[in-house]
Amino acid sequence: MFDNSDRTEISAMGEFGLIQHLAQHFEIRNGKTVKGIGDDAAVVDHGDHYGLITTDLLMEGVHFDLSFHPLKHLGYKAITVAVSDIYAMNGMAEQVLVGIGLSNRFSLEAVEELYAGMQIACEQLGVDLVGGDTTTSRNGLVISVTATGRVDKDKIVYRGGAQAGDLLVVSGDLGGAYMGLQILEREKRVFMEVPNMQPDLEQYDYIVGRQLKAEARKDVIELLKMLDVKPSSLMDVSDGVASELYHMGKASGVGFHVYEEKLPIDPQTIDTALSFDLNPSIVALNGGEDYELLFTVAQSDYEKIKTMPDFTVIGYATDVTSKNMLLTKSGNQFEIKAQGWPESQKE
Amino acid sequence: MFDNSDRTEISAMGEFGLIQHLAQHFEIRNGKTVKGIGDDAAVVDHGDHYGLITTDLLMEGVHFDLSFHPLKHLGYKAITVAVSDIYAMNGMAEQVLVGIGLSNRFSLEAVEELYAGMQIACEQLGVDLVGGDTTTSRNGLVISVTATGRVDKDKIVYRGGAQAGDLLVVSGDLGGAYMGLQILEREKRVFMEVPNMQPDLEQYDYIVGRQLKAEARKDVIELLKMLDVKPSSLMDVSDGVASELYHMGKASGVGFHVYEEKLPIDPQTIDTALSFDLNPSIVALNGGEDYELLFTVAQSDYEKIKTMPDFTVIGYATDVTSKNMLLTKSGNQFEIKAQGWPESQKE
Repeated sequence: MFDNSDRTEISAMGEFGLIQHLAQHFEIRNGKTVKGIGDDAAVVDHGDHYGLITTDLLMEGVHFDLSFHPLKHLGYKAITVAVSDIYAMNGMAEQVLVGIGLSNRFSLEAVEELYAGMQIACEQLGVDLVGGDTTTSRNGLVISVTATGRVDKDKIVYRGGAQAGDLLVVSGDLGGAYMGLQILEREKRVFMEVPNMQPDLEQYDYIVGRQLKAEARKDVIELLKMLDVKPSSLMDVSDGVASELYHMGKASGVGFHVYEEKLPIDPQTIDTALSFDLNPSIVALNGGEDYELLFTVAQSDYEKIKTMPDFTVIGYATDVTSKNMLLTKSGNQFEIKAQGWPESQKE
Repeated sequence: MFDNSDRTEISAMGEFGLIQHLAQHFEIRNGKTVKGIGDDAAVVDHGDHYGLITTDLLMEGVHFDLSFHPLKHLGYKAITVAVSDIYAMNGMAEQVLVGIGLSNRFSLEAVEELYAGMQIACEQLGVDLVGGDTTTSRNGLVISVTATGRVDKDKIVYRGGAQAGDLLVVSGDLGGAYMGLQILEREKRVFMEVPNMQPDLEQYDYIVGRQLKAEARKDVIELLKMLDVKPSSLMDVSDGVASELYHMGKASGVGFHVYEEKLPIDPQTIDTALSFDLNPSIVALNGGEDYELLFTVAQSDYEKIKTMPDFTVIGYATDVTSKNMLLTKSGNQFEIKAQGWPESQKE
């Protein structure tokens, strides 16, 4: 079945190229489909509003490691990660559907833990679990989550709306989830060598929490609405700011200048990065899984957002398409390269 | 993490019990959610119509075997199986989202085959591929498909609307997909023992096609509309008629009497079942994966459907809840038992 004589490795394309490549032959023929592949969520015309829908697939050994991801946290994160894509369209989430593939090493009690975490996330975000599929898995745990939402037609924000001169803003702080993962993986290695040694994660509580229990920034969407600010473009930070800037810039026909000194990084993230001999700014740009919201606003909106402690203006859009530059503290400039498909790069 | 001292095996619950059990603590708090877990698709209020949404998870080694499921057929079937759940609510499908987990043994050409099959199904059924997620899998191929659709509010059909006295109707014929699978698995065993022997599947073309290239019965929904027949209850035959009758009976508060002599079974299915020493009627009732539509109609609708060659009245609803009986050709009665979660029973 697999003819190796004419074989192209998927890794040669990367995830970005792959999805576009596979989707290129599919036509949109349904008048209700407003936006297909190419943004955080698909957009469907529901008459007086737009419906939003997105799907995520989480695989054991790729997206999570059951030796250090507690099932309850994993269930919570599975929901927040999917719902985050609805907020990334400036919408409010409404429903989720969950498919799980379970091997027979899972007991009922283990699955209950997973769902207990999902339930907490659903309650906090005000979404309903409305469907799912439960099946056997021959190998690892598989979780698929589909999230739906809605947005007023005049409030939807795509990734492609940034204009040269717009301010680039991010919520919260960056790089914590990635450094949390480095700590967890290090402690796992230590534990496998010295099983009796209990890991002391207390000093890493913030970044470990960022990794294990990702939050979806519903509050940011609510705050933007309260401030009467409609971003010109918007994405969530799943693969890392560098990747998101690549997408946003390409879709908008702009580039970005990012000031290194403006990057919001928690002291714990900085200390941990340095202890791993990593540059905290690079960690903040490439780390991924922070699930913060990255957006652009017109300069005229600056007054409305400047006093919000959770928002940081980290740069601005330029008219040089897809050229994203980091302006360093020392006055140098480096091009920011998107990584994409971080799972395969981590291998 | 897995505390075995207080362990309940999932197999002790079965899929039906597991989903209900896991969902019991989730509340519906969103006013737009009309129907959550418990039917073929979830139902959401979109103002002037209902939105429908459903998700399926297909796992290599459980739902398909790449040694005999060609990737193009598999892609086709992944779409039709998900979309079938939209028709099972008397709705029309509009969009699909596809998540795939790929191991590195997949080449780009192999994934293109998979998507080529999806594209054919999307074209035939008039649905748009609007989103997806592509990721690495450490183990087998994983495919998640979410399908959406819409239905007029007064046209939606749940599984719980059957009334005692209603006629039980099925489209097409039953048991073919299951016998096709038996043939494919037998040929695989032969091939592994005698690799040079090419399988001759021509005499099994119909049933092998039923397994490899399942069709979603959009035409049945269109026909019912043309005939101005609104079923009182409706499901698709995924797990098998016996399972669907269990669900339909439980949800409707009825039971069913099924006439063995009325079961529509293709001659190729009958011949193959007999050659495997299987009772064709049992195969028709328990086989699963036929993706025909099973529905009930009021007796007053009989005149409208009786001449439709693709519809067979196979029995009627009784007022004895959840008691489903097979009335045999020889005049005996047997209770029809639902199997559920056939994947784990096949293990």
